Amino acid sequence: MTDCPLCRPDKETALWSDTRCRVILVDDPDYAGFCRVIWQQHVKEMTDLTETDRGHFMAVVFAVEQALRESMHPDKINLASLGNQVPHLHWHVIPRFADDAHFPDPVWAMRKRDHRMIRTDRILLAEQLKRRLGELRQRKTGR
Amino acid sequence: MTDCPLCRPDKETALWSDTRCRVILVDDPDYAGFCRVIWQQHVKEMTDLTETDRGHFMAVVFAVEQALRESMHPDKINLASLGNQVPHLHWHVIPRFADDAHFPDPVWAMRKRDHRMIRTDRILLAEQLKRRLGELRQRKTGR
Repeated sequence: MTDCPLCRPDKETALWSDTRCRVILVDDPDYAGFCRVIWQQHVKEMTDLTETDRGHFMAVVFAVEQALRESMHPDKINLASLGNQVPHLHWHVIPRFADDAHFPDPVWAMRKRDHRMIRTDRILLAEQLKRRLGELRQRKTGR
Repeated sequence: MTDCPLCRPDKETALWSDTRCRVILVDDPDYAGFCRVIWQQHVKEMTDLTETDRGHFMAVVFAVEQALRESMHPDKINLASLGNQVPHLHWHVIPRFADDAHFPDPVWAMRKRDHRMIRTDRILLAEQLKRRLGELRQRKTGR
């Protein structure tokens, strides 16, 4: 698919990557810390991957969850693989807070309130997440 | 948590279960085939589980995805672990169709149209899914 936006990375804030997947920090004014884990190849469903690739993909998703919990201490983590609009495998990893724009509803529901007044330093957060993801994945692979 | 609805199963249509998790068919008039995979114990986040338990949980989620794809041939599978309202780990596994109530938006967004006219036989579908999930998990464990 030549018109798939996830096949052609553009202005992404990359946090971590390998040959199989990449982690980016989404630029969403409502959701600081919203990360996306994107499979590098254009594949539609998790069950289209081999079991090994699926395991690797999920291990990276859970490393992102771990890094976000340590950096931001959210009230809840939301994980979702939808892809109805862009059928190229990607996981949303979203730290949720009781006073965020939609809590306790999903971020795709009607907005409940304005976003939080406390601003997160995006550059600092990206650096923290990069470092922690690097450590978590290094510990995993022993490299 | 004694007031957690997922700790006290009530009127669930069970499709498969073991000591660690259970699969139910959700009763949603808009979404035939909407399944939920529920961790039996009251645990909040995926990274609160051991790596082995996480792997088992996801293997069951992907078996449900596989069974739904084989039975219903959906246009897309949506997977989500949210839990903002009920912080007891559960995965939504939702077969999506281009003419369903919200497509291509998430099922939590504003409704776009009435649900599909084609009715699915719920009892028949539950039987198909039960059989297929049993086969997939048996093949996996070799039991």
